[in-house]
Amino acid sequence: MNEIKIFSPATVANVACGFDVLGFCLDSVGDDMVVRKVEKKGIHITRIEGFDLPYEAELNVAGVSALAMYEAIDVDFGFEIEIYKNIKPGSGIGSSAASAVGSVFGMNELIGRPFNKTQLTAFAIKGEALASKCEHADNLAPALFGGFTLVKSVKPLKILEIPSPEDIYATIIHPQIEIKTSESRAILPKEVALTDAISQWANVGSLVHALHTSDYELIKDSLHDVIVEPHRSQLIPHFNEVKTAVLNTGALGCGISGSGPSIFTLNKGLETANKVKEAMESIYSKTDIDFDIHVSPINTEGVKIK
Amino acid sequence: MNEIKIFSPATVANVACGFDVLGFCLDSVGDDMVVRKVEKKGIHITRIEGFDLPYEAELNVAGVSALAMYEAIDVDFGFEIEIYKNIKPGSGIGSSAASAVGSVFGMNELIGRPFNKTQLTAFAIKGEALASKCEHADNLAPALFGGFTLVKSVKPLKILEIPSPEDIYATIIHPQIEIKTSESRAILPKEVALTDAISQWANVGSLVHALHTSDYELIKDSLHDVIVEPHRSQLIPHFNEVKTAVLNTGALGCGISGSGPSIFTLNKGLETANKVKEAMESIYSKTDIDFDIHVSPINTEGVKIK
Repeated sequence: MNEIKIFSPATVANVACGFDVLGFCLDSVGDDMVVRKVEKKGIHITRIEGFDLPYEAELNVAGVSALAMYEAIDVDFGFEIEIYKNIKPGSGIGSSAASAVGSVFGMNELIGRPFNKTQLTAFAIKGEALASKCEHADNLAPALFGGFTLVKSVKPLKILEIPSPEDIYATIIHPQIEIKTSESRAILPKEVALTDAISQWANVGSLVHALHTSDYELIKDSLHDVIVEPHRSQLIPHFNEVKTAVLNTGALGCGISGSGPSIFTLNKGLETANKVKEAMESIYSKTDIDFDIHVSPINTEGVKIK
Repeated sequence: MNEIKIFSPATVANVACGFDVLGFCLDSVGDDMVVRKVEKKGIHITRIEGFDLPYEAELNVAGVSALAMYEAIDVDFGFEIEIYKNIKPGSGIGSSAASAVGSVFGMNELIGRPFNKTQLTAFAIKGEALASKCEHADNLAPALFGGFTLVKSVKPLKILEIPSPEDIYATIIHPQIEIKTSESRAILPKEVALTDAISQWANVGSLVHALHTSDYELIKDSLHDVIVEPHRSQLIPHFNEVKTAVLNTGALGCGISGSGPSIFTLNKGLETANKVKEAMESIYSKTDIDFDIHVSPINTEGVKIK
């Protein structure tokens, strides 16, 4: 096998209560990529469609993660990478993670899978760092492992796979506004009240338990973020209005996807997920903000061969 | 049935990472109690052995929780309560919780179990509040439900039962020093660094996952407290020395039991738990501090009829 086509999925990080540690993987949104073994040594990005991104490997997220892996293997050939980008950069649903994951997953398949998924995450984290200026894995882990993941720690890298209840669907709206990463970071408090922190870790423990036991009511009861959302939601127009509407429509929970501006919901059943989509549409269609909405089951497989 | 004998167990709250929310139940330490239906209406504490505690129901933890339940039922008789206290008040292993739980559990059995365990916790919390000046359930929940519990919230009261791996044993040392509750509280920070809070909720999520999957290595990796222990451990002589020794002996983790001064460990297998006991003994026997040590499996049943 000298060439492989890949689907590298979008992901939702944080999942309300689990800031910086939890994430889950989407099925209906993602990038397509082709990775190809070629004679010419090194990493060569030969095609990018969808968005205007750099072709120089060391300036491209997919290139940087590929280079990190390439340096760890000893081969007398190189790799070409084609990227067909469907996830908009800056949308908050793991666009850079999808790129970072796709190249290393594809290369690993082509050379007989010498690396496990945690090792692939370690390479991909180098690419992610190019985009976000710091090493974090909360989008990478669900993109690689699928399902719900908990990044227990980054140093050392330890990723846990949390079970996904069968009947969970995500609805995500991407309002096409730009939130500067610097602003999104600066708005976070450096210190938080101990009482708020306690509520948050009660919710994280409770959500993990609820996912293990497929307890939808408890999932609903756990999807609260008292730490980050009160700050970052200010950067997203109509956030509170959307949240109120989707919860009234029956969503289990609603929060900011990653650092925004996308807003995610989790829902029991496709029917509710579709109703939530309508509720979101009815709010944003009254504004002058363009938006995309995705409805997706949880992708329990993660990045895969197409 | 007019009289019932009860074993009301000691418990460990916080469990390192889960300050204010996690707890587990012990098997080899606990109070004995007798609850008896009598003609004379009201709650009557007729015998207390072991420690010097008030007989007036409204001044006694077991009495206050009994009164809270008594007010919620409509009966033309009363209850006598005898308390044979083995858990020293102030030891940090749920002495007041055992008393609060024993009386309401016993009364509930005698009147045909009209209340579920969460409802019993709500009565017991009134007794616990007499001892600790605030309503918390992190010792009550494991005493009533057994095993590991997560108090998701107090208002409304929501308690989750987390599975207990089979081969887990606790070793607990109670150094007989007095820590004033006021001091133990005052030493806690009101605010914590967001980065520390993130580590803590990663550990809570990870511990819940590890208990569900009986992953002993992950339990070990999750039993860290970066928020409370650095402060409260200063109040416990030789804490760091004990912690280092028991971890070197093979304990999965070590932390402060409740607000101290007891120090708990969790261990895989009885043999390690016993070795840990020796390691603790060898440190405290060189001091002039009296101490008790308990080795116990996890009590998955909680408070029970003897």
